[in-house]
Amino acid sequence: MSIAEAPQTTDAPIIGVFDSGFGGLTVLRALLTRLPHARFAFLGDTARLPYGSKSRRTIARYAAESARFLVREQGAQFLVIACNTASALALDAIQDAVPVPVLGVIEPGASAAKASSQSGGVFVIATEATVQSHAYAAACQAQGMHVLEKACPLLVPLVEEGWTQHPVTAEVIRIYLDELARGAQAQGISADTLLLGCTHYPLLRPLIERAVPAGVRVIDSAEAAAEAATRIFNGHIHAPGSASLPEPRMRFFATDSVEKFERLGSRFLGRPVGRVELVDLGG
Amino acid sequence: MSIAEAPQTTDAPIIGVFDSGFGGLTVLRALLTRLPHARFAFLGDTARLPYGSKSRRTIARYAAESARFLVREQGAQFLVIACNTASALALDAIQDAVPVPVLGVIEPGASAAKASSQSGGVFVIATEATVQSHAYAAACQAQGMHVLEKACPLLVPLVEEGWTQHPVTAEVIRIYLDELARGAQAQGISADTLLLGCTHYPLLRPLIERAVPAGVRVIDSAEAAAEAATRIFNGHIHAPGSASLPEPRMRFFATDSVEKFERLGSRFLGRPVGRVELVDLGG
Repeated sequence: MSIAEAPQTTDAPIIGVFDSGFGGLTVLRALLTRLPHARFAFLGDTARLPYGSKSRRTIARYAAESARFLVREQGAQFLVIACNTASALALDAIQDAVPVPVLGVIEPGASAAKASSQSGGVFVIATEATVQSHAYAAACQAQGMHVLEKACPLLVPLVEEGWTQHPVTAEVIRIYLDELARGAQAQGISADTLLLGCTHYPLLRPLIERAVPAGVRVIDSAEAAAEAATRIFNGHIHAPGSASLPEPRMRFFATDSVEKFERLGSRFLGRPVGRVELVDLGG
Repeated sequence: MSIAEAPQTTDAPIIGVFDSGFGGLTVLRALLTRLPHARFAFLGDTARLPYGSKSRRTIARYAAESARFLVREQGAQFLVIACNTASALALDAIQDAVPVPVLGVIEPGASAAKASSQSGGVFVIATEATVQSHAYAAACQAQGMHVLEKACPLLVPLVEEGWTQHPVTAEVIRIYLDELARGAQAQGISADTLLLGCTHYPLLRPLIERAVPAGVRVIDSAEAAAEAATRIFNGHIHAPGSASLPEPRMRFFATDSVEKFERLGSRFLGRPVGRVELVDLGG
């Protein structure tokens, strides 16, 4: 179903947000402030993460199963795929699997980079799997930009260790950005925009903004996806008034590691996650 | 089947080595030098890693399927479980699943620590999942030792990034060992032995040995497991003479990410891994 065919509804709709883990909670966090009258169901497929090391076929199957859970069992009327790997490799498979509109994080990130960049040059930092998919490069190039991608495998573990303000993390970021700058120089690419292509990286934004050269803007694909979702969905969401917003406003589901999700999730969501419900999608 | 019932064979036997990823190649590396007349089949269940974040039931199922593949399809007559999580949580399930002797890494590591320590105090560093299982603590305490465990979640990603000699890694090790020392002081535990309870950590051994206080010995559970396997299996392995050792001496299998296995595996094995065969265990 295309976005234009999305059902009109007067009830507070449920937006399904899906990630392989809980990094996508940064996308939900950005959605919460923009869509105060929507309800949300978040699924982290934690039993089968990381998606990044798996084949396209396997990722498509996992993502489609997860999308069906959110739509059929939780009644989601829109889906936001807050997972870079699934957005890069399985967006078509998800769209085929469910009869609701589906938005990934890649295209909104590329569009935000396009809007930010005056030079037409953009750097993308992401996980190794996302970089190897070259999904951001393809999306940026399709919009006429020059792009250089850089894998930063240590940043997710540093965020999960809680070292988001730590000197070691600042040093790792400096090393990665130096390597990126040297690669750009070697290839004759210049950029005025750095796109954060991983849902964990918003937690490092203060350190990253301190580390980029003057004149380089930092753009965040989690914020960009939430912005795009808000633009698309606002036409279909008729605020029922906050008094009638049904409770709970958010439900959280995970396929494993519920305790870790509850413990670490609040850092990403910016507020307590509360109870996470365990679901079994098989596999 | 108990170790004592292991079949006597005059052919070069096949030893199955199993890990959730490829860190267990450090155990295979230690086995290769000790058992020059054995053949090896190594399986990395890379499609379903990390085991550490999964439930005991799920880990037991995955590990049993992997063990059956090595025994039934590859003809392994002995199994070495070169995976701390599976050794900690699924050794019984694996022993029930296959009719050959099975050796994990936890008990040999604890025994090596016992043999090393004069004070009876041991520190264990490992992944978060291994520490949360307290398997090393239980095994060390069963041997009458005082033990303090410390999770070091950044060390595996640093090894996989290839930063095994890097100043950032030295600094992270210093921070973790400082935290360990402060924890030990608070609890009144002293130790003269540091046990490396993760198959990735042998690659960091030079940096770790430089960071520990004088008088603390570093013990490696990969080496300890290979040593124990050699003692147990030597009684059952009758060297056929190197001329008759069938080729190939080693076969490598992975359930996904064959390319990453081939690329990174040689660091752990200390020689080229060569071709890795993709197998589908379902899930």
